Amino acid sequence: MTRTAVVLLSGGLDSATVLAIAKSEGFEIIALSFRYGQRHGIEISAAQSIARKAGVLRHVVVDIDLRLFGASALTSEIAVPKGRTAAEMSLGIPITYVPERNTIFLSYALALAEVSMADNIYIGVNALDYSGYPDCRPEYIEAFEQMANLATKSGVEGRHLTIHTPLMHQTKGEIITRGLKLGVDYAATLSCYDPDPSGAACGQCDSCQLRLKGFADAGVSDPVRYREQAVAT
Amino acid sequence: MTRTAVVLLSGGLDSATVLAIAKSEGFEIIALSFRYGQRHGIEISAAQSIARKAGVLRHVVVDIDLRLFGASALTSEIAVPKGRTAAEMSLGIPITYVPERNTIFLSYALALAEVSMADNIYIGVNALDYSGYPDCRPEYIEAFEQMANLATKSGVEGRHLTIHTPLMHQTKGEIITRGLKLGVDYAATLSCYDPDPSGAACGQCDSCQLRLKGFADAGVSDPVRYREQAVAT
Repeated sequence: MTRTAVVLLSGGLDSATVLAIAKSEGFEIIALSFRYGQRHGIEISAAQSIARKAGVLRHVVVDIDLRLFGASALTSEIAVPKGRTAAEMSLGIPITYVPERNTIFLSYALALAEVSMADNIYIGVNALDYSGYPDCRPEYIEAFEQMANLATKSGVEGRHLTIHTPLMHQTKGEIITRGLKLGVDYAATLSCYDPDPSGAACGQCDSCQLRLKGFADAGVSDPVRYREQAVAT
Repeated sequence: MTRTAVVLLSGGLDSATVLAIAKSEGFEIIALSFRYGQRHGIEISAAQSIARKAGVLRHVVVDIDLRLFGASALTSEIAVPKGRTAAEMSLGIPITYVPERNTIFLSYALALAEVSMADNIYIGVNALDYSGYPDCRPEYIEAFEQMANLATKSGVEGRHLTIHTPLMHQTKGEIITRGLKLGVDYAATLSCYDPDPSGAACGQCDSCQLRLKGFADAGVSDPVRYREQAVAT
């Protein structure tokens, strides 16, 4: 087994934590990020900052155009929902769902792992906070891993590729607690679906709400900057 | 089940035949092609011509940059091997292998199928002629289909997505015979890994050799244009 892992790095809280976990498990890191027509290209800057601070071997940023495939609040002009309750968030598939995002991302990660002779991929999917996303469930990840081991040269040659999902069953509070122990600088991360041009988070979209609740549960304050009125709600 | 199918269309002989098969099975077609840094962008022109003649609902061309992931004769400057025997071609994985090409292509096809409410994807993979490609084997396709049905909204909602591989166990000669019965215009297709700037095929790369043998087995002459000295060898 090589000691290199490909880590999917969005620039958000979860993937920054995953990167730190992969490092703590002894891997050298190749980080992989995507520009995919999302409104917050500022996420890529966050990913670059996180990758640099973590001392990765290489940070690959791939441009892909998911807008071709139709509407989603993360890639088109549909308004991001604000102020939803946890119960509302858990109802069905959120409109921020990007069709096949994780499948496409993992496919690129698999190609990068293959050419890098890396047998390990880390992804920050979470079955608790994102229960509405079909491609964040353990059975999906298991099926992808099985497919991956049939798709690749390394699979054919008898090596085994593993997809690690260290956050799968953790609450946001547990993720933050773990990351803080590993020295993750959460000030460099961005979770908001709708940051303002200065990068300040809205504090009201689903992602901000989950993040704020996570910091509250972890008993620490969130170091990222929110718009002034945001956190009062 | 909707009667729309996404067909992966490279502009080559196999995918042109698959498109005709999907139509003959009663589907309206959304064709999907990729520009992926291959040297023969002329393939896209072939795909566009085939799609237009077939009267597809829509032809989506996606730009992806596989060169990011390293070397292969189809995307970089390694010379395309010429004049290899069938025995040489069958030894291991060919250097024209593009890492995870089919996985990435099928992932995009899955996204397009999902947003198009299509439950069927057609791909022209073949386990006989391309035995060295891990991602052309039936067990790989089955694993991808299983993953796909866990990845999507439609899978969660109980619909079933099917990946059709009508050429999987057919010889090139059988594919051509079938395509001719369905009216495929093979003059519009391009198989050569190394066409000259005018579009003339080299006649000597693995793909040309397989194609020429297929036409010979089918007992018809190949309507595409070869460089003058090529077919004599």
